[in-house]
Amino acid sequence: MRTASIEEVQTPALLLERQKLDQNLARMRAQIARWPGLQLRPHLKTAKSIAVASLVSPERGPITVSTLREAEEFARHGFNDITYAVGIAPNKLSRVAALNRGPTRVSIILDSVAAAEHVAAFVKKEGVQIATLIEVDTDGHRGGVKPGDPLVVAIGKVLADVGALSGILTHAGGSYGARSTEEIADYAAKERNGALRAAEQLRAAGLPSPVVSIGSTPTALFSKDLSGITEVRAGVYMFQDLVMAGLGVCRPEEIALSVLTSVIGHQSERGQLIVDAGWMALSRDRGTQRQALDCGFGLVCDVEGRILDDLQVMETNQEHGLVSRRSQAPVDLARFPIGSKLRVLPNHACATAAQHGRYHVLAGGQAVEEWERFSHW
Amino acid sequence: MRTASIEEVQTPALLLERQKLDQNLARMRAQIARWPGLQLRPHLKTAKSIAVASLVSPERGPITVSTLREAEEFARHGFNDITYAVGIAPNKLSRVAALNRGPTRVSIILDSVAAAEHVAAFVKKEGVQIATLIEVDTDGHRGGVKPGDPLVVAIGKVLADVGALSGILTHAGGSYGARSTEEIADYAAKERNGALRAAEQLRAAGLPSPVVSIGSTPTALFSKDLSGITEVRAGVYMFQDLVMAGLGVCRPEEIALSVLTSVIGHQSERGQLIVDAGWMALSRDRGTQRQALDCGFGLVCDVEGRILDDLQVMETNQEHGLVSRRSQAPVDLARFPIGSKLRVLPNHACATAAQHGRYHVLAGGQAVEEWERFSHW
Repeated sequence: MRTASIEEVQTPALLLERQKLDQNLARMRAQIARWPGLQLRPHLKTAKSIAVASLVSPERGPITVSTLREAEEFARHGFNDITYAVGIAPNKLSRVAALNRGPTRVSIILDSVAAAEHVAAFVKKEGVQIATLIEVDTDGHRGGVKPGDPLVVAIGKVLADVGALSGILTHAGGSYGARSTEEIADYAAKERNGALRAAEQLRAAGLPSPVVSIGSTPTALFSKDLSGITEVRAGVYMFQDLVMAGLGVCRPEEIALSVLTSVIGHQSERGQLIVDAGWMALSRDRGTQRQALDCGFGLVCDVEGRILDDLQVMETNQEHGLVSRRSQAPVDLARFPIGSKLRVLPNHACATAAQHGRYHVLAGGQAVEEWERFSHW
Repeated sequence: MRTASIEEVQTPALLLERQKLDQNLARMRAQIARWPGLQLRPHLKTAKSIAVASLVSPERGPITVSTLREAEEFARHGFNDITYAVGIAPNKLSRVAALNRGPTRVSIILDSVAAAEHVAAFVKKEGVQIATLIEVDTDGHRGGVKPGDPLVVAIGKVLADVGALSGILTHAGGSYGARSTEEIADYAAKERNGALRAAEQLRAAGLPSPVVSIGSTPTALFSKDLSGITEVRAGVYMFQDLVMAGLGVCRPEEIALSVLTSVIGHQSERGQLIVDAGWMALSRDRGTQRQALDCGFGLVCDVEGRILDDLQVMETNQEHGLVSRRSQAPVDLARFPIGSKLRVLPNHACATAAQHGRYHVLAGGQAVEEWERFSHW
């Protein structure tokens, strides 16, 4: 928690621009506010930071997490309404129960009768309440029961019998493969309609579904109708990244996260720069590979954050990045002497941030604070 | 530091089989012992653990690191001869100097006159000794001066003028692209010959080159001649991984590292398992993609570590892995009920280990100890 010149920050380092973060948060809040009563339940798997969470939700409102470690950290800091949005493994129920015995409510998700029976047996045996959501699949992306499948009701009954049924949850992960914002809006409509249909199945069978939870950054920002939905989950919107820019969800200039790096070598023959940000600092994520603009391992900016022509990190080893031009023309090496600093925009904010232990927070071009991140499970 | 049933370990978790680790260490020691006087300088970028380092080098001998964080951690635990084998950034010289003012000797590497001038100016101004190696490039892999290039001597002179020249270092990273162990042996010969040629250039110019350092796991294990070389660096050999198995460097059964995971869902339509090891636990590394056997995000084993037919992690999200068969036939889901445990062998040990904060060490099929890992810079 100190002010430093960006030149003093040891490379590689994760930078977070406060102003862009604030703008990204405001944009999502404005979108959610269009539907009265609709709640934002931000996904903190990208941030994994109490400081960021406190800006995202100053009122310590409902949040989403991807690990029980996140749930435990956020619970310790006063976040009391948490959805753990990964299908529950039976071996994790004791940790969930431990949290639910305190002031925290951790909801879980599942998509099979077998998993529901594990939960029902546990809830009965331990005498603890665990709010459980049925995961439905609206785009063939990953897990989840298809809306309309009688399984929705079958699972619902197992849960309702022990008072554990809390509603429906879906995630339109397929929207990451959309080719236009119109297509994203189509995914958003399918996501909403599928979730509502599954909730209707429960209600028609006389089962409760107070929660109808949907979300992903693309569908949340491009939904045309969210009526009937009770809450929206999204995470990447806080920082944005090149995958989101490639989808048309944001402009590259809105990406709040970057990796500060130093030039450590010149490959004169190939006209390449060698920098000290390899895959350990950038992650191995190649999320833009199938997009119209393949950004390699990240787009290169100058130390102030201005995107440089067509410079990209083309290859990575553990602690080395090879920077070249998309046009394949040689880089003007004299412009980037040994020791000069660059910044790299991430393909995937979640993956890049996960490689770091702290954010160096920038305001007015200065590194004004360091915010801790946590990780692991 | 406790004994537990593997069933008690929370998933996902990084497992390390003690017996395989010991066998891998013994194999490399035997190879190095073939050349009298040749020193092993193990690369600890894969392990990042004091406990593992203490087995790799019980005598606290010379080691290699990829970050100054590693150098600082190992120095604090009595490793006093450390080579930081990433081209030095001028902004890191103060941290190197701080270590060199204590009982530790941290050597650095560089491959340009500009970087050498930074070091020379720093050494003069601060009055500290920093042993410096000239990085040479024997296979066009990444950084380094070509052996025979007059730059070797030009850089050597800048360093020798301030007493900082320590010798030559190269890394045959190109060997990871070899298609047979014969081809690896060719890379090894090029690596040795190139390093010796550069050292001869220095000596012919009246400059010292006490150190001639080479290494990579493939070339170290398949070198036919290491005479004239003073030390060998290698890291992955400790754990091995699927990339090494694909190269013919080890058998999959020799891989000491795996990720324990739980089945959390069944995708009946596609005949896939969903497990709780996504890219956060496995890493995004797809190092086997261009090999004869593309292992996806890792080969799947049963909880005892036996490789299962043709099961692979085919897709990953942050905390989800999708397991299917290479043959594309549906997985027999009944064989893997919700909550059952599997293990995943990593493509790239360095990348997978980096995602975890500790090793769960297995001996006799039990998790007998937890060993901390460190990370970041």
